[in-house]
Amino acid sequence: MRIIKNEIRIAGFDDAPFIPRSYGKVPVVGVVFRGGSFLDGAFKTDVTIDGMDATSTLIKLINNSKHKKQLRVIMLKGITMGGFNMIDISQLYEKTGLPVIVVNRKMPSLEDIRIALKNFGNFEDRWDCIKRAGKIYKMKIEKNKNIYYQFNGLKKGEVETIIRLSCTRSLIPEPLRVSHLIASALIKGESGGRA
Amino acid sequence: MRIIKNEIRIAGFDDAPFIPRSYGKVPVVGVVFRGGSFLDGAFKTDVTIDGMDATSTLIKLINNSKHKKQLRVIMLKGITMGGFNMIDISQLYEKTGLPVIVVNRKMPSLEDIRIALKNFGNFEDRWDCIKRAGKIYKMKIEKNKNIYYQFNGLKKGEVETIIRLSCTRSLIPEPLRVSHLIASALIKGESGGRA
Repeated sequence: MRIIKNEIRIAGFDDAPFIPRSYGKVPVVGVVFRGGSFLDGAFKTDVTIDGMDATSTLIKLINNSKHKKQLRVIMLKGITMGGFNMIDISQLYEKTGLPVIVVNRKMPSLEDIRIALKNFGNFEDRWDCIKRAGKIYKMKIEKNKNIYYQFNGLKKGEVETIIRLSCTRSLIPEPLRVSHLIASALIKGESGGRA
Repeated sequence: MRIIKNEIRIAGFDDAPFIPRSYGKVPVVGVVFRGGSFLDGAFKTDVTIDGMDATSTLIKLINNSKHKKQLRVIMLKGITMGGFNMIDISQLYEKTGLPVIVVNRKMPSLEDIRIALKNFGNFEDRWDCIKRAGKIYKMKIEKNKNIYYQFNGLKKGEVETIIRLSCTRSLIPEPLRVSHLIASALIKGESGGRA
């Protein structure tokens, strides 16, 4: 297992709030964090609500970034953005060369997602992303507080180390907590509740 | 002199890059920081390029914010946004009740500003903001590294304490370093150089 530095550069992404089943684009904010300590850079892009461009948009953004050579891992809050715009984390890993960690506060209900995805013509493509995201693991962050994660390109122990070292201020890794606050400010004028 | 807590809540604002003498609005990003340690909230608004709405926009944003009751001080990078949209820091202090600290990396050339402001019909109004911003002080942050500041609503010693405790990662206070990175990402897709 590789040694994980405390200041490992993590790029964390979150989408802004939007009206479900509306049309158009939703802003996506990324931040480069040194572990759980401080913000070193920022990204802004957008993806189509319920579209199919989230994976390619993130790949392009990261591969063209001057931050890329510093980055060691990508973090996402869930594997969808802008509703059901799926992020194929195995493709994201392959095309960027950066391992991916997906964090959820709650255990995602695959059955609920399956039902929602049935509304789309390309159900199979979207459902394949879910399958390729792999097993969902549970991790205790504090007494009675769990988070759920998936990953690609790392060992399970490495993932848990990175999650733990980046949860410095809350029960959610700093790159995701901060990208959430900024993304919601973009739409609402100021940040709202927790990530 | 009041005791300044290490985690004093600071709202720092910076504008995004834009093409000088163009028309329209420029995004302004704010972050709520606990001293120099971490980001607690975010703001997004915009001001008119070379307009006169920066002061009233900031007053409205702050007075309507749910973060306001936590805030103790406002920080700005210079007293203009979106070109020569002046921030009247004495009005900002009066109307929000929050002291204001303005930080510059370089000693602003009042003569250059005066010449630029001569291009505007309402020169006197704009120049009054410069006068009301008060004396510019120099402060040594590191050997051979100075910053320049103005303020309203605090004592000089308090201002220097707040600047020092918030410069944890660089020679510029964290709320300004981070709002700069985010604001430039909004326009360029990713953050560029230093604040």
